[in-house]
Amino acid sequence: MRTLPVLVFLFSSFVAAASAQTGAPASPASDAPVSPDAAAVNRFFAEALSHGAAYDNLRTLVSECPGRLSGSKSLERAVLWGQRTLTALGADRVYLQDVMVPHWERGARESVRLLPAQGNAVPLSAAALGGSVATPPGGLVAEVIELHSLDELAALGRDKLAGKIVFFNRPMDPALYSTGLAYGKAGDQRNRGPAAAAKYGVAAVLTRSLTLAHNDIPHTGTTVFPPDTPKIPAAALSTVAADRLSAALATDPHLRVEVKIHAQWLPDAPSHNVIGEIRGSEFPNEVILVGGHLDSWDIAPGAHDDGAGIVQSIEVLRLFRALGLEPRHTIRCVLFVNEENGSAGSAVYASSAKTSGERHIFAIESDSGGFAPVGIQFGSTQGVEAHERAARWLPLFQPWGVWRFVRGGAGADVSPLLLQGVPAAELTPDSQRYFDIHHTAADGLDQVNPRELQLGAGTLASLVWLVDTQGL
Amino acid sequence: MRTLPVLVFLFSSFVAAASAQTGAPASPASDAPVSPDAAAVNRFFAEALSHGAAYDNLRTLVSECPGRLSGSKSLERAVLWGQRTLTALGADRVYLQDVMVPHWERGARESVRLLPAQGNAVPLSAAALGGSVATPPGGLVAEVIELHSLDELAALGRDKLAGKIVFFNRPMDPALYSTGLAYGKAGDQRNRGPAAAAKYGVAAVLTRSLTLAHNDIPHTGTTVFPPDTPKIPAAALSTVAADRLSAALATDPHLRVEVKIHAQWLPDAPSHNVIGEIRGSEFPNEVILVGGHLDSWDIAPGAHDDGAGIVQSIEVLRLFRALGLEPRHTIRCVLFVNEENGSAGSAVYASSAKTSGERHIFAIESDSGGFAPVGIQFGSTQGVEAHERAARWLPLFQPWGVWRFVRGGAGADVSPLLLQGVPAAELTPDSQRYFDIHHTAADGLDQVNPRELQLGAGTLASLVWLVDTQGL
Repeated sequence: MRTLPVLVFLFSSFVAAASAQTGAPASPASDAPVSPDAAAVNRFFAEALSHGAAYDNLRTLVSECPGRLSGSKSLERAVLWGQRTLTALGADRVYLQDVMVPHWERGARESVRLLPAQGNAVPLSAAALGGSVATPPGGLVAEVIELHSLDELAALGRDKLAGKIVFFNRPMDPALYSTGLAYGKAGDQRNRGPAAAAKYGVAAVLTRSLTLAHNDIPHTGTTVFPPDTPKIPAAALSTVAADRLSAALATDPHLRVEVKIHAQWLPDAPSHNVIGEIRGSEFPNEVILVGGHLDSWDIAPGAHDDGAGIVQSIEVLRLFRALGLEPRHTIRCVLFVNEENGSAGSAVYASSAKTSGERHIFAIESDSGGFAPVGIQFGSTQGVEAHERAARWLPLFQPWGVWRFVRGGAGADVSPLLLQGVPAAELTPDSQRYFDIHHTAADGLDQVNPRELQLGAGTLASLVWLVDTQGL
Repeated sequence: MRTLPVLVFLFSSFVAAASAQTGAPASPASDAPVSPDAAAVNRFFAEALSHGAAYDNLRTLVSECPGRLSGSKSLERAVLWGQRTLTALGADRVYLQDVMVPHWERGARESVRLLPAQGNAVPLSAAALGGSVATPPGGLVAEVIELHSLDELAALGRDKLAGKIVFFNRPMDPALYSTGLAYGKAGDQRNRGPAAAAKYGVAAVLTRSLTLAHNDIPHTGTTVFPPDTPKIPAAALSTVAADRLSAALATDPHLRVEVKIHAQWLPDAPSHNVIGEIRGSEFPNEVILVGGHLDSWDIAPGAHDDGAGIVQSIEVLRLFRALGLEPRHTIRCVLFVNEENGSAGSAVYASSAKTSGERHIFAIESDSGGFAPVGIQFGSTQGVEAHERAARWLPLFQPWGVWRFVRGGAGADVSPLLLQGVPAAELTPDSQRYFDIHHTAADGLDQVNPRELQLGAGTLASLVWLVDTQGL
């Protein structure tokens, strides 16, 4: 009973602390008057957090269309889902843009097994890389050489490499704050490693999954074989499997491993970018684009990558409708196809943009997961310093956790527009958890927090509104 | 095969984007020279992210000592765990501070059931509030009055309330960015509602769980009955159960509900604050304190609340040891007991601090979950504007996502020190997910991301080091 004064103190302290947390004058928690711009931005966020449809849309997308890789039936269901969802929210115009996409199929699930000198074979959790070719139907068996960089291939040379399995096992650097940077620094092993190894007659490549998590979930992703170069089978091992293989090699350097991959390339397939828009009341031929990519890896539900970006982009249109706002410029939501293994959708879109007679005044993409947004990065080219011009708006976003506008890349799907001179940007969510589930079967709805997802939608919509009303 | 140029562009764009994300000169990702302070801070974070022990410590704490409420055997196991863990990392001194703690027990699990006029009883997911008294052993049955504020009690008066069950059903406001603020604004229903209702002869109180999640998990927490006032049974309903009850009342205002609660207060029990420290080389009697609370709610594993703060505080000492740093002042880690239902641990600590002959130069707490840190709030009293003086260090933290130092409350366990004039602060992690699991059975290890947890430890250790070497 003596607890009362302390508890009351505790509660009031919590509220005071929380108030300080939202802090800035623009906060809806404050009774201080806010600017008209702040009021508008706050309305976008409040609507997104209170009545957002993004999470429910994500549920239907990932449950009806998991594994929507280019060429798959699931992707074509997702195209229809996108068309239906954009129509239902009352977009002025919803249409499809024809795109021919590459068609790679995993086939039956791959198998990678340690074959110890004595005892039973030990299965290693693995996923073939997108772009891998098949092994012979019965698999291939070879000794394994563990490497940590592509440079080490040349040092060993064909004599020591031919016929072997090369195992690239350089981990992502956990000491980096940006997991995206750590991903980029380790990515050559998956992206270019198999092609580099193939030149030396290597039989197959295994790579350590690109993740900072230590578990038994393998992470797929693209590997690239340049035209007219040899192609070999390639798969990613889970980090647990990679450590197991490394430990086994330490005790038996002649250990053999069996790899079975059943993947194949098929002829390019017809697909579509899905486009929905609210027509601009003053400048219908001037376009503000917001988008993400509709495809995902075949083994992944694709909730964060990039279901999140898709439903956030759709939500931008819904927020304009829900708030009764008529944009001056056309607000266009584009669900690009084939970001994961070809970027054919963005190439077609950018190409058509050149001849459409329209002018794109801004393009922004969400493709780094549906986590709490912390910033926006603006692509920079030809003296376009969009992040500096946008800086005047930053105080409107900080009460919502979005605290930095920086110069950086734009997303993969809007970068072709950036190269045409369109100011382009990408949402930056917190990156800590993204590579735990990136390109895996674990990238499901349960990994997405509805509020974090909706804050991203609020950020995109607010920025689109500011560009529409005031110009970048 | 035409995919190559696009994919290489994609990858390099990702890396460029990630570089921009870490951005500031202090980033370890940059080759630019960094200041000695930045280098030191970066070493704390790199060590925390690369070799952190906090997550493994959290695993043992929540698996060996879940539900460590004051008076429980689990809390006493946790005391021994804390002593053992601090000793193992090589603290100079590890000791216990005697604290008598309140002892409330839930007893057999509560039951709340709708009793429709026709048909079977419908169980509602519920958790008795800490501090609730028991119903009669066979339960109590009464009609229900749904309210949305404490003010509505007075308007109805004793005539309409006596003998009824009051159901407080005002939701947390989803439109607020800070979930802590939303919690504070809805918290009167749980904290003071039962005592307020008891004055009018109400038989029992049900409250909507304090969460923004919509699911069937009930959230417990303290309710306070001031001395010499009537005490009644009180329980929180899951948000799904609250909505179900509200809907049922809309169709049948005379609907009756049965409540069975078996809770009881027992005599205060002996427990301990657990303290470990590294002795200051120059000023051993001047103390920098870092802490969290060891107890949790009985139904909760207590991973985020406040296992996270406990293992982060312990990690601060480990980081100093791992980096071979000898602090000038004594760095003291305090695992407070009884934050959840009494704050006896912090009261005893603060009281002893007055007569110990030591001087506390800074105290910081982590008790808002083990999510990615975004800021630090500094308590303010008597003209102490610690956040302004700390502002010179903010650029050292921003490359690690910690972007704001604000004036606010200090944590509950260090606030008594603040009232004695000690500069005191609290870590501010991202708040979006905290109240999804706060005070529930779902507050388990699976909800904690190791990197987010370690970033908090790196933040605490860096700030402690800066205060130690330069003064606040």
